[in-house]
Amino acid sequence: MSDVLRVGVAGLGTVGASVVRLLTKHGEKIALKSGQTAEIKAVSARNRARDRGVDLSGYAWYEDPVEMAEKADIDVFVELIGGDNGPAESSVRAALSRGLHVVTANKALLAKHGVSLAELAEANGVSLNYEAAVAGGIPIVKTLRESLASNEITRVYGILNGTCNYILTRMEAEGLSFEECLADAQRLGYAEADPSFDIEGDDTAHKLAILTSLAFGTKISDESIYIEGITSITTADIQAADELGYRIKLLGVAQRTDTGIEQRVHPTMVPKASAIARIDGVLNAVAVDGDFVGEIVLVGPGAGGDATASSVVADIVDIARADKTAVLGMPAAHLEDYTRARMRLHEGGYYMRLSVHDRPGAFAEIAKCMADEGISLESIVQRRATRAVNAPGSGGDSAPQPVILITYETTEVAVKKALEVITEKGVVSHPPQMIRIEKLK
Amino acid sequence: MSDVLRVGVAGLGTVGASVVRLLTKHGEKIALKSGQTAEIKAVSARNRARDRGVDLSGYAWYEDPVEMAEKADIDVFVELIGGDNGPAESSVRAALSRGLHVVTANKALLAKHGVSLAELAEANGVSLNYEAAVAGGIPIVKTLRESLASNEITRVYGILNGTCNYILTRMEAEGLSFEECLADAQRLGYAEADPSFDIEGDDTAHKLAILTSLAFGTKISDESIYIEGITSITTADIQAADELGYRIKLLGVAQRTDTGIEQRVHPTMVPKASAIARIDGVLNAVAVDGDFVGEIVLVGPGAGGDATASSVVADIVDIARADKTAVLGMPAAHLEDYTRARMRLHEGGYYMRLSVHDRPGAFAEIAKCMADEGISLESIVQRRATRAVNAPGSGGDSAPQPVILITYETTEVAVKKALEVITEKGVVSHPPQMIRIEKLK
Repeated sequence: MSDVLRVGVAGLGTVGASVVRLLTKHGEKIALKSGQTAEIKAVSARNRARDRGVDLSGYAWYEDPVEMAEKADIDVFVELIGGDNGPAESSVRAALSRGLHVVTANKALLAKHGVSLAELAEANGVSLNYEAAVAGGIPIVKTLRESLASNEITRVYGILNGTCNYILTRMEAEGLSFEECLADAQRLGYAEADPSFDIEGDDTAHKLAILTSLAFGTKISDESIYIEGITSITTADIQAADELGYRIKLLGVAQRTDTGIEQRVHPTMVPKASAIARIDGVLNAVAVDGDFVGEIVLVGPGAGGDATASSVVADIVDIARADKTAVLGMPAAHLEDYTRARMRLHEGGYYMRLSVHDRPGAFAEIAKCMADEGISLESIVQRRATRAVNAPGSGGDSAPQPVILITYETTEVAVKKALEVITEKGVVSHPPQMIRIEKLK
Repeated sequence: MSDVLRVGVAGLGTVGASVVRLLTKHGEKIALKSGQTAEIKAVSARNRARDRGVDLSGYAWYEDPVEMAEKADIDVFVELIGGDNGPAESSVRAALSRGLHVVTANKALLAKHGVSLAELAEANGVSLNYEAAVAGGIPIVKTLRESLASNEITRVYGILNGTCNYILTRMEAEGLSFEECLADAQRLGYAEADPSFDIEGDDTAHKLAILTSLAFGTKISDESIYIEGITSITTADIQAADELGYRIKLLGVAQRTDTGIEQRVHPTMVPKASAIARIDGVLNAVAVDGDFVGEIVLVGPGAGGDATASSVVADIVDIARADKTAVLGMPAAHLEDYTRARMRLHEGGYYMRLSVHDRPGAFAEIAKCMADEGISLESIVQRRATRAVNAPGSGGDSAPQPVILITYETTEVAVKKALEVITEKGVVSHPPQMIRIEKLK
């Protein structure tokens, strides 16, 4: 093994610049710990003129990352371009095919092409590391690939998107609307100009797809994920959750069931006393339930240039130490096919918020619909809606009243059916809100 | 590399039996993931007749672990005997000297002999893994040795003893005395018959000594740790903390300062909103502050046969994968000497609880002592002590009154001096209680 591990970095955004700074600042420490000096030899980005706050003059410059992957004198190709196809995919494939180790922070790429990239890495006898692709600075990939390798995992779940958690935290803390908090997140750089990828749950789903494969030894299947974002969450939901002893978090959950593996991303009511309820702001958290270890929870920054760079460089250090883990925890040929669980059988408690027409018998109709589906109710909160004193029509008319229902454990199919019937019967003025309640420690 | 990694387990208590069960139950999974089948070939314990709930008939039996280390046909020697000398130490040294990999859960052994054992492992080109020695099932050793290898660590701290955390949690939740909670912990098997090693802070100190070395790249120095246990904590302290927005936890803290590295174990008041305040019962938690990663927190079971076995087997899996990390994160020869920080310069807020004689001018004297040492007070809580209505002498005499003081940031030397003067002047009826306040996120 050479004394120097030659690194090429493709993509020089915030994370790329932090990787350059980290390798420069702590190069000696890394050499001492890993036995090899990791030195950047080449970089790739489109705009050479842009000031990135780091000195890039000593590195070979490639405008085309594929060209860098194919030609640069490097041992490790670091992909920080992003996107599940285009130059990210083609440069990673070129690097692996050439026998370079690859480090990437690209969750979309892994979620879509993880298995075929793992096969390519194996065929070429190189590492494909991606600690930064899931939960930023949190070492969850290593924990699942290595530390918990001997456990039978029953569930992995977490807060995997800092943008959503920031919005939900502020909505709760300050009683602000979703739109106000999103605007603040955008102003502070926690959300993109087009935030849909985060707030609709797709980013969480990509990360969950990777965690599922690592936890259960199945092929990555990001198309089998039930996804619901946080855009429908209102301050009324947040307040009701608070009063009932819950907080609302966007969770990604993967769980082994009798019928297969369930993967779902949706706003979830979690008990205030649970570890996950207490993760605030842009932090991420991942919990893993294993048959021997019990439950462990890892908490930390899920994004940010420096935290993400910490994970990228950890992957480089593993390569410098000649530590080769199977890309997806075991040889790709041994991964089981992913069998999707019948989500309709998912059991748990449910929260429902209905805007009920204020007319005689409305509540009896709701109660009957629930009973017809065998749903038992744990709590019912009906509260006269606040009205502006001088608002027109505020004198005893039939303005809709909010009704909150919490069910005991029941099935999703029963809840959806009941809500459908309630809506069809015209008992409610707006589409009902439904949020799943997760049993957590 | 052979297809089979032959394992010998010395010590067949709760953890040893769990290791046997785990390797038996998940042997195939481990083989798939690591490329080698880890098979137990030999075991060692004194009492062969005892029923341990696992079938040991297929393994060679050694009464003497040293003999097993020297003679058994094994590749990995697993030490689960315990103790910082005697058969644990001699068998580990024999195994390393013979060129066997060693896995141990023995924090006392590592704290006392870690550096010389690391040197011995290096000289023989074998691994010495000890994930289970710190915080049970939590993968903190791997996280520090590998995932955070490229970070400059500024602080590592945590709840490292489940017995103490269980006692403090119950004292707070139920208003019970230390003695009552300790008795319960003993009845439930969370505390030993002789609990002093846990409740006096020594167990936490051993684990902290290991974390310090990994975090700061210094030689292990468990004799330089300031240690204070939880035996002096009363329900009055717990209640006062609660009212002031804090919880009391036994923390191990290692921190880089201008004068060296500070290692301390003591009851600590932590803000209720901090992640560490919310770790209840027998759980452990470890937080690490790194210059790039920021703060990450790992939470999980700190003890228990199965959780500990999970970490022991994770170490075996690393050996099966031929992953060799430097025992203490870097070659032992490169570890810096440990320089103890001047603890007297430690700065932070302090909580003091005084039993003040109820006489004119007492409070003025206290205030003057604090002012003389330059201590600013953030809160002062003086509350007339509750007295039994018919208690003798309850009618306006001079029974001591509890006074709670919270200081702004000051130095330990100032606080100790002030308390000394207050005591000398006879203002207080009992030795003052002093608890450090830790600034945490």
